[in-house]
Amino acid sequence: MGKRKYAVGVDFGTESGRAVLVDVTTGREVATSVYRYKNGVIDEFLPGSRIRLEPDWALQDPEDYIRTFQRTVPAVIRESGVVPADVIGVGIDFTACTMLPALSDGTPLCTLPAYCKNPHAWVKLWKHHAAQPEADQINATGRRLGEGWLDRYGGKISSEWFFSKVLQILDEAPEIYAAADRLIEAADWVIWQLTGEETRNSCTAGYKAMWSKREGFPKDSFFAALDPRLERVIDQKMSRMIRPIGDRAGGLSPQAAKWTGLQEGTAVAIANVDAHVSVPAATVTEPGRMVMIMGTSICHMVLGDRQRTVEGMCGVVEDGIIPGLFGFEAGQSGVGDIFAWFVQAAVPPDYHTAARKRKIDLHKALELEAARLRPGESGLLALDWWNGNRSVLVDVDLTGMLLGATLATKAPEIYRALIEATAFGTRVIVEAFDRNGVAVDELVACGGLPEKNKLLMQIYADVTGREIKVTASKQTPALGSAMFGAVAAGGAAGGYDTVFEAAQRMAHLKNEVFRPNPAHQTTYERLYGEYLTLHDYFGRGANEVMKRLKLIKAQVLAQTS
Amino acid sequence: MGKRKYAVGVDFGTESGRAVLVDVTTGREVATSVYRYKNGVIDEFLPGSRIRLEPDWALQDPEDYIRTFQRTVPAVIRESGVVPADVIGVGIDFTACTMLPALSDGTPLCTLPAYCKNPHAWVKLWKHHAAQPEADQINATGRRLGEGWLDRYGGKISSEWFFSKVLQILDEAPEIYAAADRLIEAADWVIWQLTGEETRNSCTAGYKAMWSKREGFPKDSFFAALDPRLERVIDQKMSRMIRPIGDRAGGLSPQAAKWTGLQEGTAVAIANVDAHVSVPAATVTEPGRMVMIMGTSICHMVLGDRQRTVEGMCGVVEDGIIPGLFGFEAGQSGVGDIFAWFVQAAVPPDYHTAARKRKIDLHKALELEAARLRPGESGLLALDWWNGNRSVLVDVDLTGMLLGATLATKAPEIYRALIEATAFGTRVIVEAFDRNGVAVDELVACGGLPEKNKLLMQIYADVTGREIKVTASKQTPALGSAMFGAVAAGGAAGGYDTVFEAAQRMAHLKNEVFRPNPAHQTTYERLYGEYLTLHDYFGRGANEVMKRLKLIKAQVLAQTS
Repeated sequence: MGKRKYAVGVDFGTESGRAVLVDVTTGREVATSVYRYKNGVIDEFLPGSRIRLEPDWALQDPEDYIRTFQRTVPAVIRESGVVPADVIGVGIDFTACTMLPALSDGTPLCTLPAYCKNPHAWVKLWKHHAAQPEADQINATGRRLGEGWLDRYGGKISSEWFFSKVLQILDEAPEIYAAADRLIEAADWVIWQLTGEETRNSCTAGYKAMWSKREGFPKDSFFAALDPRLERVIDQKMSRMIRPIGDRAGGLSPQAAKWTGLQEGTAVAIANVDAHVSVPAATVTEPGRMVMIMGTSICHMVLGDRQRTVEGMCGVVEDGIIPGLFGFEAGQSGVGDIFAWFVQAAVPPDYHTAARKRKIDLHKALELEAARLRPGESGLLALDWWNGNRSVLVDVDLTGMLLGATLATKAPEIYRALIEATAFGTRVIVEAFDRNGVAVDELVACGGLPEKNKLLMQIYADVTGREIKVTASKQTPALGSAMFGAVAAGGAAGGYDTVFEAAQRMAHLKNEVFRPNPAHQTTYERLYGEYLTLHDYFGRGANEVMKRLKLIKAQVLAQTS
Repeated sequence: MGKRKYAVGVDFGTESGRAVLVDVTTGREVATSVYRYKNGVIDEFLPGSRIRLEPDWALQDPEDYIRTFQRTVPAVIRESGVVPADVIGVGIDFTACTMLPALSDGTPLCTLPAYCKNPHAWVKLWKHHAAQPEADQINATGRRLGEGWLDRYGGKISSEWFFSKVLQILDEAPEIYAAADRLIEAADWVIWQLTGEETRNSCTAGYKAMWSKREGFPKDSFFAALDPRLERVIDQKMSRMIRPIGDRAGGLSPQAAKWTGLQEGTAVAIANVDAHVSVPAATVTEPGRMVMIMGTSICHMVLGDRQRTVEGMCGVVEDGIIPGLFGFEAGQSGVGDIFAWFVQAAVPPDYHTAARKRKIDLHKALELEAARLRPGESGLLALDWWNGNRSVLVDVDLTGMLLGATLATKAPEIYRALIEATAFGTRVIVEAFDRNGVAVDELVACGGLPEKNKLLMQIYADVTGREIKVTASKQTPALGSAMFGAVAAGGAAGGYDTVFEAAQRMAHLKNEVFRPNPAHQTTYERLYGEYLTLHDYFGRGANEVMKRLKLIKAQVLAQTS
């Protein structure tokens, strides 16, 4: 075993954390262990209390992150039989923006008796959606002051992002804001716990906190315009020292060595984000190939060598994905979620029964039926906005639409129309990049959907007119984190000096390629034209009926009945 | 029993015929009998043969009509104990246009060995939809020649109508056309069988054969322009003697007396149509109150004292519903059918199970859930075009649309949105009449839906801003036919001299009234505005995506796969 070296990647998800032990030479995933967070997503009551959370809140417990290290890393060591001395590096990735207030020594405020009963003392999870008013205020103030950074985020930042959450703390719990020595991404906080040193990574800073390598954070005067108390938030509670991903954060502290069973001083990489760390794990370290993480939603990432302004992208960050390149991100807020909605809410019993008889799940049964239809055969067309539109319209108030229904319309036809609509949504994103000088020549898919639905992959190839390849790993974020662990260790220690080298050795694609079918492309070209017309009609202000219906709904619900 | 007089109404439906024996003084329905047609709707093979019909064909067997008289009339006499001498009149109503070719003595061509193997020799049922090319030709020729009668039909006639079917016979079976001494509505043909005399009624002539009291049929030159062989179709195979409904057609022939068990010479009314005969049976014999026959589709009928041009109406016929008045007709091609589609094709198992547990049908279960929602609460809006649009757009190629869906959208919300969409469709029709000088002050509903769905009735009242009353009878067509039978008998025989008198005595409404809820009206006013915008956008040429999707579908299906 002597010569073989290993790296550990730890992927912190929404409900659980996962460690993977990876062979640094081959990228083989030797052992995996998952820890389901004891307190999961906290969205009803604070743990062990009767303190009820308001709607749209979503918190986590930082102790769950420590427990993830304690449970999963020793487990992969045990399972693999690898000796700790051969584990040369550790990397982690996290959901984002997932952030918390802490003391200057890293102690989370929620662990202190003085603050633990205040929900604002806890970790705000990425999908905490209660800071929309604050996001609106940031966007309005940014526009009013003509802030240039707005362009890097497609003109609008999200309620999920760092300063929306910070401003909510300040608005609703100024005592927590005051007590917080540090406001920090959970990604960086866990690295702090591993190494004993506070670092801040360029990925979350860039994509979630409006930082850029060239301009830094928004100016203090902008923060002061939001709220005078916020003027010096960067210097008082954050850091202007942003470290590029790919860097070494430090070595494993004695305490963290005890948690993990790894050797003290083992190299630890700068923190990363689950989506972004998947890019090199999908073999992509150069411009031209877009990575799609396909699950309940889709995250689209592509690299470029220059900064470009692309309508409705989520963000562009230098060093945000791969050091030395600009990482562009866009997304669709509902994809797998829409199919799950359909299967749960709109498929009649016959199909459920038939699927049970064939011992396949309902998604698979519908896919098989839908695959027998030719493009255009259903006469249906949908707008894939069941969960709003993230890119390129950036509008959470848009809603889903289905058109073309007749008395003969059947569930598999609707299922296929929904898949096609999400494919059209991806094409809109791809073309927005392409049109603005960010080439997208090929697609690389990872995540749950490519494994589950071949019809969907073929439709995406047909609709976008691009070949789609699929990652070999089913746990690309954890693999990517292990790759960055190997880079943190460096070539001299048996790892790699750059993420480019790491990707060449450790990241792999399947042989499977989805190639556009020219006959299908012809029909989809026509359907995409129809989609675009409706996309613009409903999405760009010609008819804002979707927003007005939401407004009417809100007004009706606000009335006492 | 001596003084009481009775009339029999026979309603010829799509699948069966129904006789009702009615007390002429009170309108009480004393006995009912239904005969399910032996050969039903013939849409696959000619009876007793392997002769297969093409798609969209729908035929009937005229022998089934005779069997209806033979089975049902004796049955109501038997059941009621009424003596035949006290039955003073017989009326019938029929689906329309349902037509057949016959010899000059009334013998249907399909009963003759020489022709019985030719599908064109049989009765073409109203929903025979294979004559669309012929309808297109009639409309194009009519427009080209500037035919004034087009205005009376909202600018377009249907593939279901008389001359579309005639032209199809001529095109596809010229030998049947040549052999047909008579081309006649089945409604008139059954009256011929009862009385031994051929008559033609003003209702089908006006609504289905482009006849008007003032101008007669289209000119011979128009028919010649369609096809030279058709030039003299009216004089050769039809009749210019059109009799107003309310007239006496003749007396029961000896043979028909034998079939029915009634007395020879019993008064027989001029034939009528199921929808139109329901108007006086719904107490309506004057302008201002619109009758809605609400079932799988809705037929809207209202009376006026002057001819008016109303966009997209199905037709206006003087004497067409009530003698001396103009009968206006419009319609929605899919209403109950859309709900049936939804329940069958798009409701998940939970709701089926819950309905079974509560021992109610799924429509009722969804209605109860949907009734708990307030207007606007679902955020959904639909266009009710699952089966095209009959009025006011008159476009079979329009399709259904649902907008506003989110990941939280549930089946009862969609169910309610579909009901609301059909109510908006009715409002468009009501307002088209109102705007063009045909007052609609109140609605009177009959048919299956008012019995089944109270929520729907309330929504229609809220959306239209009009009170809705409901007929007492559950078989208004048969009751209406009996009323016309009583009028055919006349006052001296114990019946009535006019249909106005008959309606006053024999027709009744329930006490139930659906009144607009002002709070709901306010919200529906806003939603109706949104509906109208989309109605016009998709229906009036701004975006013909629905037609293009149908075209793409047709092209895809036409390709060999």
